[in-house]
Amino acid sequence: MTELLRREPRIISAGLRPLADAAAAQAARVTRVDWKPPMAGTQEHLVPVLSDRRRAAANELAVGRMLGSRAHLVDVLPARDAVGLRTGEFLHAGPPIDWERASGPLRGALMGAGVLEGIAAGPDAVAEVAARGGITLAPCHSRHAVGPMAGVVSPSMWMFVLEDAATGQRAYCSLNEGLGRVLRYGAYSPEVLDRLRWMSAVLGPLLQAAVRRNGPLGITAILAQMVQMGDEAHNRNRSGTLMLLRDLLPAMLESGFGSADVGRAAAFIGGNDHFFLNLAMPACKLAMDAARDVPGSTLVVAMARNGTDFGIQVSGTRDQWFTAPALVPAGLYLGSYGPGDANPDIGDSAITETAGLGGFAMAAAPAIARLVGGTAADALATTARMREITLAEHPRFQIPALEFRGTPAGIDVTLVARTGILPQINTGMAGRVAGTGQVGAGLVTPPAEIFTAALRALAQAVG
Amino acid sequence: MTELLRREPRIISAGLRPLADAAAAQAARVTRVDWKPPMAGTQEHLVPVLSDRRRAAANELAVGRMLGSRAHLVDVLPARDAVGLRTGEFLHAGPPIDWERASGPLRGALMGAGVLEGIAAGPDAVAEVAARGGITLAPCHSRHAVGPMAGVVSPSMWMFVLEDAATGQRAYCSLNEGLGRVLRYGAYSPEVLDRLRWMSAVLGPLLQAAVRRNGPLGITAILAQMVQMGDEAHNRNRSGTLMLLRDLLPAMLESGFGSADVGRAAAFIGGNDHFFLNLAMPACKLAMDAARDVPGSTLVVAMARNGTDFGIQVSGTRDQWFTAPALVPAGLYLGSYGPGDANPDIGDSAITETAGLGGFAMAAAPAIARLVGGTAADALATTARMREITLAEHPRFQIPALEFRGTPAGIDVTLVARTGILPQINTGMAGRVAGTGQVGAGLVTPPAEIFTAALRALAQAVG
Repeated sequence: MTELLRREPRIISAGLRPLADAAAAQAARVTRVDWKPPMAGTQEHLVPVLSDRRRAAANELAVGRMLGSRAHLVDVLPARDAVGLRTGEFLHAGPPIDWERASGPLRGALMGAGVLEGIAAGPDAVAEVAARGGITLAPCHSRHAVGPMAGVVSPSMWMFVLEDAATGQRAYCSLNEGLGRVLRYGAYSPEVLDRLRWMSAVLGPLLQAAVRRNGPLGITAILAQMVQMGDEAHNRNRSGTLMLLRDLLPAMLESGFGSADVGRAAAFIGGNDHFFLNLAMPACKLAMDAARDVPGSTLVVAMARNGTDFGIQVSGTRDQWFTAPALVPAGLYLGSYGPGDANPDIGDSAITETAGLGGFAMAAAPAIARLVGGTAADALATTARMREITLAEHPRFQIPALEFRGTPAGIDVTLVARTGILPQINTGMAGRVAGTGQVGAGLVTPPAEIFTAALRALAQAVG
Repeated sequence: MTELLRREPRIISAGLRPLADAAAAQAARVTRVDWKPPMAGTQEHLVPVLSDRRRAAANELAVGRMLGSRAHLVDVLPARDAVGLRTGEFLHAGPPIDWERASGPLRGALMGAGVLEGIAAGPDAVAEVAARGGITLAPCHSRHAVGPMAGVVSPSMWMFVLEDAATGQRAYCSLNEGLGRVLRYGAYSPEVLDRLRWMSAVLGPLLQAAVRRNGPLGITAILAQMVQMGDEAHNRNRSGTLMLLRDLLPAMLESGFGSADVGRAAAFIGGNDHFFLNLAMPACKLAMDAARDVPGSTLVVAMARNGTDFGIQVSGTRDQWFTAPALVPAGLYLGSYGPGDANPDIGDSAITETAGLGGFAMAAAPAIARLVGGTAADALATTARMREITLAEHPRFQIPALEFRGTPAGIDVTLVARTGILPQINTGMAGRVAGTGQVGAGLVTPPAEIFTAALRALAQAVG
């Protein structure tokens, strides 16, 4: 003890900063440990879940399946054939919701899609039908599908069909319309509907012919290339779109369609840097579907928003949704739009973050800062922070600037609860008023309470 | 003085490390200044050149012209029409050279091109004609052209025609053949010549029709995008090639050529990640040509190698070449090739480094490490090191990972002489035996003595 007092004190401080500050103010050397108590409300359930003997092996199995997924584009079909939608049925993004609670952009997209399907003569008339309960809504996720932003799919819209070479499972996503005034951001003006009609009449059938002629096209392989070309596959899909165009072009030329149609389709794809998003999303959906339904696994297999609620699903709790009100992203606005114009977070596109891309891969895409705000240093820090809540580094999604280290992949509910770090999502922002379209892009997280709720359900499942 | 001795000594050490080490060993705090004497043999000429009153303004003018260049692809023409080549005339990369001193890959390329032009029936017969002085050689640079690797251009080959919107000046480059066994790496087998014949018969005319239909296509603008998509525009031109294909495709479809020709051309371009190199190079050539012939300027306006000699030209010394034996790159080899198979450095492609791309932009393209060796950290360090010898940061070539800081652009002979830091070039490696083709890719610098020679000439020009 005398010996101890004779030496300079060595202080290690975990947690409370005032204690460490006081010692430092007296010129003592203080080593600060970055420790925080678990997320509020999780202590009770963390213990049973963390001590569940199945957990380690279950997560290893689920993560292995996720990382082993190899998505291929195998067909393009109308939603009627792809996911069996009937007239009057509409898919939407996020967890289940009804018309009554639907946000402006979701209502706007349904109004436009309703006109497209002949539900009523105009958008307002469709809204009246919907308010009377005259349309049927179902989440994309309930049909092995994903949809960006409002995510509305109606029977006549064409969808990409992806197949996982590892599991044989299929996933579906609509074709991307471009940016600005488009249905998925809640716009429904005549130009929006005309574009959708052309997509159903020409683009879809042409892509079908090209994909069938080309044979399965490796989408996971393109995603791996994208991460080396500045894309994070959520808000940057530039190189992915270009590679898709390059790879499908020979078959498009041999499709039997006239060169005017091929030219317009090629210009439409090439003119929309986000076209590939609708292939990145179902590829990520396949990876996460492969990891579903492993008893004891605490892996998040879906994050999705309908513009009102943010929901997650977890491997160990089957198809149960854990939901809470969606937050409004913070970011950069288009033109004269501002924070008051933005709808809360919307879309199934957070499936990219769920699978180790998007916000989790921001270090691979520092130029995203120009779109969603922040700096290149922030992008590096975000990817580093996501490593705290993920179970693996993705072996295919390698970031050159990090010496080819893989992106953080596989969100663990217990790690989120333990650290209080929430998944970082970068996303587009829809106008909150139906009919507006896109108003900006920015950063957002899920509401913390959905992880608390998921943890509670996992604890109950331990029994 | 007593006061000075009472305090702890503060030592700043510039240059000699043993002195600093000795003080540090006695527990003194030493601040080390990273100082080195100028490059050997330059002291005598540095003083007059650095004190030349014209220098600052001359370099500002030259650099301003370089950075203001905006290259557009405006036409595609046979070399006969583009640069006035006649039968029996051949362009080559690098400074002037004759057959006698020509390296294996340059000879091989000339032998193939000679067969193509009907100089003789076979490669060996062409070599005999050449050895008798039966062909005429001129550097690409002497005709406002640049050529990758051997850089051989013959009258029937088609060339890209680029025009600088800022100056009206034009520059020319052949069409890229792909990788492996290709003429520019010195291969001349029948498959090489068949490919060149198809390029002259179909690809060139098709691209001519497309470019004329499309109108001028901004190449500097594509280069700016590439730097944000992981390309450094010398050994990585992936996104550039994809953007070119996207941009020319609609006009290719409307060119009047059959869809089989369009399909083969699109597949040829899309299947060769390096296709855009032959547009990046003449765009850089235009930027550097804009900066030529400014009296008193110490800006390097060309770095080029013919496989035997490395040569540079400097703005203040007009068309004078400063040459010395080219070095052999160090890097990674294809298949079973090794260092003994590599020819010394060859090609005009170092014009990309001259203009602030290639090795100077490696921080934008860390994935290049997989091709030329090294790590992502090396790539960052290389770009940082090149800032020591350059006069500007390129306002258009912004690196996202460096918070959109511009690439180091505009090599100053005096800064090279003062620091001893040589320009970093990343490059392909040709087999040293004529007919081999590519054997690898790696890193190389110019020989130091060409900067000593250039500085001497600049000193003489001060008078």
